[in-house]
Amino acid sequence: MKTISILGTGNMGKALVKQAAANLEGQVLWGSRNPQEAAELAKGFRQERIVTGTYEDALQADIIIPAFPAAAIMEWAQANRDRLKDKIVVDIANPFNADFSGFTTAWGESSAERLQALLPESIVIGAFKNTFFRVFDNPVFQDRQSDVLVTGDDEDAVQQFIQRFNPLPFRFLHAGPLANNRTIERFTLLELELAVRYGTYPYISLQVFGIPEAVPVI
Amino acid sequence: MKTISILGTGNMGKALVKQAAANLEGQVLWGSRNPQEAAELAKGFRQERIVTGTYEDALQADIIIPAFPAAAIMEWAQANRDRLKDKIVVDIANPFNADFSGFTTAWGESSAERLQALLPESIVIGAFKNTFFRVFDNPVFQDRQSDVLVTGDDEDAVQQFIQRFNPLPFRFLHAGPLANNRTIERFTLLELELAVRYGTYPYISLQVFGIPEAVPVI
Repeated sequence: MKTISILGTGNMGKALVKQAAANLEGQVLWGSRNPQEAAELAKGFRQERIVTGTYEDALQADIIIPAFPAAAIMEWAQANRDRLKDKIVVDIANPFNADFSGFTTAWGESSAERLQALLPESIVIGAFKNTFFRVFDNPVFQDRQSDVLVTGDDEDAVQQFIQRFNPLPFRFLHAGPLANNRTIERFTLLELELAVRYGTYPYISLQVFGIPEAVPVI
Repeated sequence: MKTISILGTGNMGKALVKQAAANLEGQVLWGSRNPQEAAELAKGFRQERIVTGTYEDALQADIIIPAFPAAAIMEWAQANRDRLKDKIVVDIANPFNADFSGFTTAWGESSAERLQALLPESIVIGAFKNTFFRVFDNPVFQDRQSDVLVTGDDEDAVQQFIQRFNPLPFRFLHAGPLANNRTIERFTLLELELAVRYGTYPYISLQVFGIPEAVPVI
């Protein structure tokens, strides 16, 4: 069974650790700059499933999710390129600019592809891009699960990721190659705009309409 | 009350006319290259609400929906620029390339903005971009409505469009300025890819997750 680690104690880090500890088999390694702080936070979750440690410790896992802002993920990847070799690294970032009016990437680029270019010997998966952190508190809205669009250029890794995370109360959809994050990341900003207009921010995500259930992917 | 016309008897034209005749107040003007053909097709719908005519006749309405392929809309707009002055022109097109592998527009461009640039004295609204024609047969899936993202740079026209079309069994969301079609149109291609993978093509659309209901827009 693939081991999992999540790095960072921000909104997305906490949200992911809480859901992973509640729903996944095995332990979740939670890496923090301050493991003591992570251990304190873990008391509010299903603590027996969580092992807290340093960022360094978290590199041991098979599937590694850095829950940092987009720019910090790039720095972290460059600094740990060798240690991340052959690992599945999950990119959950949206490279918004400072005032959330646009992106630090150009049109036709994506954070996920940039991370893969920085880590040519790792396998990058894009996931949880459209899922604002508050959605993790309640991924089932009016009896319907929020969708997570899972992308990757390595079919086997996409399947492994979906199988491993499928117990979470989201619907995981195979959304094609990493290049699709050019659209997926941009859609997150549109969600943000909609959430503000309709008064639901930061509880916003997406669902694809018309798929009866997430049947085993081809 | 704003009068409505729909041009074209292709899949989207038929789908729009059928839903409009079934749900909207007043008559729907259906413009066709061959009005006789449109009149024949209308017999299958709620016929007393439909007035068939030529493309020329259809220019009389206040809200005009050309249900043509993206390239044909541009030609039609150029040829009818004067007649379309001060009208609301609804762009429903996605400028896919010939083999549906990408777009005829560059990243950071959109069909809706191009149409507005061609028709500076008309008011362009983007709508029904993510809604494949088969969705019109059943816009309510598992008790949930498909979302239509409505965009425009003229707030008043966006509100008028939403008010006029709101009786249709879709959820209409105000999705901001025309520039958001850079993302919205690209998302349609991602939907197509998902629909093929999950075996639902061409029944695919999207829903925004977390908005309790489409409350009156701000």
